[in-house]
Parts: sequence; structure tokens; C-alpha cells
Amino acid sequence: AHIVTLPGDGVGPEVTAAAVAVLEAVAEHYDHRFTFEEHLIGGCAIDATGEPLPAASLAACQKADAVLLGAVGGPKWSDPNATVRPEQGLLALRAALGVYANLRPLQVHPALANLSPLKNEKLKDVDVLFVRELTGGAYFGAKTRTADAATDECKYTEAEIERVVRRAFALARERRHHLTSVDKANVLETSRLWRNVVQRIAPEYRDVTVEHQLVDSMAMLLLTQPGRYDVVVTENLFGDILTDEAAALAGSLGLLPSASLGEGKRGLYEPIHGSAPDIAGQGVANPTGAMLSAAMLLRHSLGLEEEAQCVEAAVSQVLAHGPRTRDVGGHGNTAAVRDAVLMAVE
Amino acid sequence: AHIVTLPGDGVGPEVTAAAVAVLEAVAEHYDHRFTFEEHLIGGCAIDATGEPLPAASLAACQKADAVLLGAVGGPKWSDPNATVRPEQGLLALRAALGVYANLRPLQVHPALANLSPLKNEKLKDVDVLFVRELTGGAYFGAKTRTADAATDECKYTEAEIERVVRRAFALARERRHHLTSVDKANVLETSRLWRNVVQRIAPEYRDVTVEHQLVDSMAMLLLTQPGRYDVVVTENLFGDILTDEAAALAGSLGLLPSASLGEGKRGLYEPIHGSAPDIAGQGVANPTGAMLSAAMLLRHSLGLEEEAQCVEAAVSQVLAHGPRTRDVGGHGNTAAVRDAVLMAVE
Ligand SMILES: CC(C)[C@H](C(=O)O)[C@@H](O)C(=O)O
Ligand SMILES: CC(C)[C@H](C(=O)O)[C@@H](O)C(=O)O
Repeated sequence: AHIVTLPGDGVGPEVTAAAVAVLEAVAEHYDHRFTFEEHLIGGCAIDATGEPLPAASLAACQKADAVLLGAVGGPKWSDPNATVRPEQGLLALRAALGVYANLRPLQVHPALANLSPLKNEKLKDVDVLFVRELTGGAYFGAKTRTADAATDECKYTEAEIERVVRRAFALARERRHHLTSVDKANVLETSRLWRNVVQRIAPEYRDVTVEHQLVDSMAMLLLTQPGRYDVVVTENLFGDILTDEAAALAGSLGLLPSASLGEGKRGLYEPIHGSAPDIAGQGVANPTGAMLSAAMLLRHSLGLEEEAQCVEAAVSQVLAHGPRTRDVGGHGNTAAVRDAVLMAVE
Repeated sequence: AHIVTLPGDGVGPEVTAAAVAVLEAVAEHYDHRFTFEEHLIGGCAIDATGEPLPAASLAACQKADAVLLGAVGGPKWSDPNATVRPEQGLLALRAALGVYANLRPLQVHPALANLSPLKNEKLKDVDVLFVRELTGGAYFGAKTRTADAATDECKYTEAEIERVVRRAFALARERRHHLTSVDKANVLETSRLWRNVVQRIAPEYRDVTVEHQLVDSMAMLLLTQPGRYDVVVTENLFGDILTDEAAALAGSLGLLPSASLGEGKRGLYEPIHGSAPDIAGQGVANPTGAMLSAAMLLRHSLGLEEEAQCVEAAVSQVLAHGPRTRDVGGHGNTAAVRDAVLMAVE
């Protein structure tokens, strides 16, 4: 299998290197051949080429079996009025790869429950899979800006909604058969279309219980009854907000992975944390989210379920018995966590 | 002073009646004359007149010194495809009254900290005032719907942003001199305009420290560092989501008030909870949010600060020593809580 890595900015290179090391250990242990090819994206790509997603990076991703990304952005490129911004590279990549379904699993490791802002009794049974629509909505709609006004258009077609909702139903079938669709149908037209599509498709998945929640209520319910949810599907911007909120429950943003999938097997994998400029270059970033993203890559793009579970078990063991990085209450550095996971994989 | 009440749907009438009783007790105790005039809004207005905001209701509100609202909506009127919906009445009222600044204070009563999903140590020093823009953004932008697509436009003018941001700065000056502006400037054009306006105005308020946060990060920070925030200003939809999330911290949605203000003294006051159809008509709804909204009415529309504080102290005392409604772990009904507050006011 051929894997393109896009380390990006800030701690991106550090955590991506750790995830690559894990994939190499898996290849060795299970006798697979993985080839890696590194490319630029984000701020470092702007510095080197003037563009946040150089043509060479995109072309390589489009030929790869999977893409492993670190993080993009940082204070150096964060002027919101700049015409070229690191995030544009990431958004362009998501669109070009057609990875419309962003899977963000949330589980709370028992050994880390004390780090969560939520009371421990609330965290029991928390096991949610968010499915965020990733290539539509206000992120990609028409924008205008005049001297004294600005607009963003949120647009969805039925087809865009249907494909991500079907993916969510299919995932619910492999889990606990419960799907929560989140919208703001009491105010937004796109949300009414969203709800209509879910209601139209639902009868085809009779074994899945469907529930609709308004996004404001859901922001509350994620805190008051997080154990109640199985698969949660929603549009791009709501998904951005709700998954970061949910991530806080896990104890550290550094722990959580994501997979972005389209029609084929090719996927884009990235930890949900950002470039963390405050700790970049120090070798102390938590590589867990990146390593678990590598596990998702094994599962979804390479069809290697056993290998994926091996990585997840190794990570879980290290979270329980250390070493740990600072964000999860330890003193270990990135390399120490990486080495412990490599040891557990072998 | 002349106050229009719009009890609305579900538990709206029950909690509004309790809030009116509190205002009457204040009038008696402090020797003021308040007159009350009740009108229809929401689902009950649709049933009676076909319209969610009948002209008579709006005209009365436009002549009143203040408007006290209960809640709108319920399963009877919740078909998202219906052409007339209860929420339209509320949105039309907010727009017609020009109440662009929605103030949502969040404090966690020490006696209720055990009801919060957040760990107690996180709740120390939580005292946030959200200022949500209420008459712009995707709520009021152009919408389209065709057979297979839909759009919502989020639009902001500089003037719309400037007036609500100035209000937030002014409020920060009366509090702890810290303002957090929340946007999604790395993706949305309206957010870039928002940030530009905040940056342009900030030098006029040198005594206020300004911080910018992306909405996804903010959804997380509200859980991990809630004690860090003073005044938080944001656009309509982000404010809808973040304030419901924050409300969960208080232990029950039934506790929290809101005030919606425009240029003059006239304001719209409503608890942030909804119509709670599951418990409507049983006399068990928590009237605290409505009573604290009445306190905000005394403060912001009538300029009666001492009276407002008297109500707040009475409510706080009752929360500490009971009786309490079910949502906050008690067995009392709405009337018991109301009577205890009335007693404490006198
Ligand atoms: C970097 C940013 C554009 C991105 C998003 O908003 O999608 C990030 O927050 C994420 O969630 O992956
Ligand atoms: C009822 C609904 C339209 C309303 C809103 O979204 O503004 C409510 O959620 C609120 O926050 O007051």
C-alpha cells in the first residue's frame, strides 16, 4: 500500500512521524509492504511554494491508497485577511479527494476519566461515532465581501445529504443501531432539507432507531447524557463545533483521531487536534490522536481490521500504564509514547 | 410601567405567571405601579389566528416598556415543512423590536453544583455573560429551496456587528474587563468581517482585554476552562449553540434567564428553556429562569437595579434552602417555588 504523508505545521511533523513509525511496525509485524511519500500542505507549503496545497501534493494524494495528515496553520499565517491561508489547503484537499464523511469516534479511556471536565458517572458508556459532512455547507458555499458587509452561503443538495446520511446509517448498523441526526430545522432551510432526507431514507434501515435533535439542544445533551448516543450525523459546521465540544470530554484533544472517507477506499486521516504552536518543536506533543488515525487508516483504507485493532490495543495499554505526555498528566515526551506503543505492537 | 406578557406554549404560561407574581410583589413592596397586558405568540397564536405573531400582539409589544415571554413551540406545530411555525413568531418579534443584543448570564449556584455534569473544581468562579447577536446572520438571511437543494445565507453588515460588539465592550467595562469574541474567521467571510470590526473598535476600549476564539475551540474551552471567561460576544447561530452548551453547566436549563435589548430601553425577556411539552400543564416547571428574566427586566428596561437584586437574592435563597422543582432534584411544584420567592421578596 502507498501512503502519502502531509505533516504540515506546528506539531504536525512530530505526531505524523510517530504514526508512521507505528505503521512501519505493523508492516514488519504482519509482513505487509507500506511505502511512504511526504508532501507539503498548509503554512509550510505557503512558505515553500506560495500555495497552501501545491499541485504536486494534491497529485500525490490522488494516487495514494491513503493520506495521513498532521495539522495545518499557526500564528505566522493566521491573519484572517491574508488572501492565502493554511486552512485553504486542507479544505481544498478534502474537496478534491471527495471525502465527504468525516468519522470522529469518541471514547473515554477509563484510565483518563479523571482528566475529563465531566463527572465520572457521566462518562460511563460514552462511545459515540460522529459522522460530520465534510465537503459541503458554509465551508464551501459562495462568499461575498464588500466594504461594509459580508455573506456566507450554506448550500446542500439532496445528493450530498443522502450519501453521508447513508454512510451514517450503515455505520449505525455495525454498532448499536441508533442514529441521531442533528440540524436546526426550526430555523434553517438547509436543515429542513436535511431532516427530510433522513426521514425519507430511514424506512430502508428499519433496524436503526432514528432520533432528530436541534443543534442547540444537542450541545447540551452531549454534556448531560453523553452515554445515550451511538452514531451522530450532522452537517459540516455543526459537526465542527459539536465534535470539538465532545472531544473535551475525552480529557485531551491530543487523544482523538479522525477518518475522512469518500466513495472509494482512499481516505484522509488526521488527529483532530490542531498545530499547537505553543509546544511545536519541543518533542512533547501527544502522538495518540495521530497513531489512532493510523489505526483508522489500516481499517478503512487498507481493510486491515486485525492490524487496526492491534494498534488500538497497544495505544490503550500505553494510556493505561504510561508513559504519558503532559496534556494527559504525564512527563513523557512524544518519542517515549511512540516507543512504548511500538513495543506493544511487536 | 407597562409590561406585555406573551406566555406562549407548553410550560410558558406556567412560568410566566410565576414571574408576573414576582413583579407584582416587587411593585407592592417598592410602591411601583406595573400594568400587565397578555397577548398570543407561537403555537397558541397559530391555533387562534393562523399566525405565529398576530398584529395585535406585535402592536402591543411595540408600545410596552418591556415584554416578558414564556416559550414557543411544541410537537403539535413541529412539522419542519409546515409553512407556519411557532418559532417564526419569536424571530419576527425579535426583528420587529430590534433587540439585537441577547444577554445570557451564566452563574452556577453553589447549592446546585452537584447537579452540573461538570466536576465541581471546574465550576469555581464561573460567571460568564454571553452577548449573542440576535437579529442577523443565517436566522434572517435569504433562504431558497428547490426540489433537490436548499440554501441559507448568513449575512452581516459592519453596522450590525459594531452595535452588538460595542454593547459587549460596555458590559465588559461594568464587569471584569475581559471580552472574548467568537467567530470562525479561518473559514467564514462573515467571521472575518466580524473579527475586523472587533479589532477596529478595540482601541476605543483600552481598559478591556480582547481575546478571539474560533467557535470550535470555544465549544471545548467552555468545558475545560469555564472560569476564564467574562463577557463572550458572538453571532446569532454560534450564540445559540454555545449558550445552550454553557447552560448545561448550571445544572438545569430551567434556571437561566435572558434579556434581549436594542437601542432604547424596551427589551424582550425570556427564560432560555423551551416549551418543555413533556411536563406542560402539570404545574411542575421550574419558574426560576422566568423569574430571573423578570429581574433582568427590572434592571434593563425599568432601571430598577435595587429591585432586580432583591429578586435575584430571593431566588438565590430559595435555590439554596428550597423548595425545588424536579429538574433541580426537588419535589416541589411551580407554585411552591413561586410562593417561597414571593415570601423572600417581601
Ligand atoms: C482547520 C479548520 C479549517 C478545520 C475545520 O473547521 O474543519 C478544523 O477545525 C477541523 O475540524 O478539522
Ligand atoms: C426557538 C428558537 C428559534 C430559538 C433560537 O434558535 O434562537 C431558541 O433556540 C433560542 O435560543 O432562543
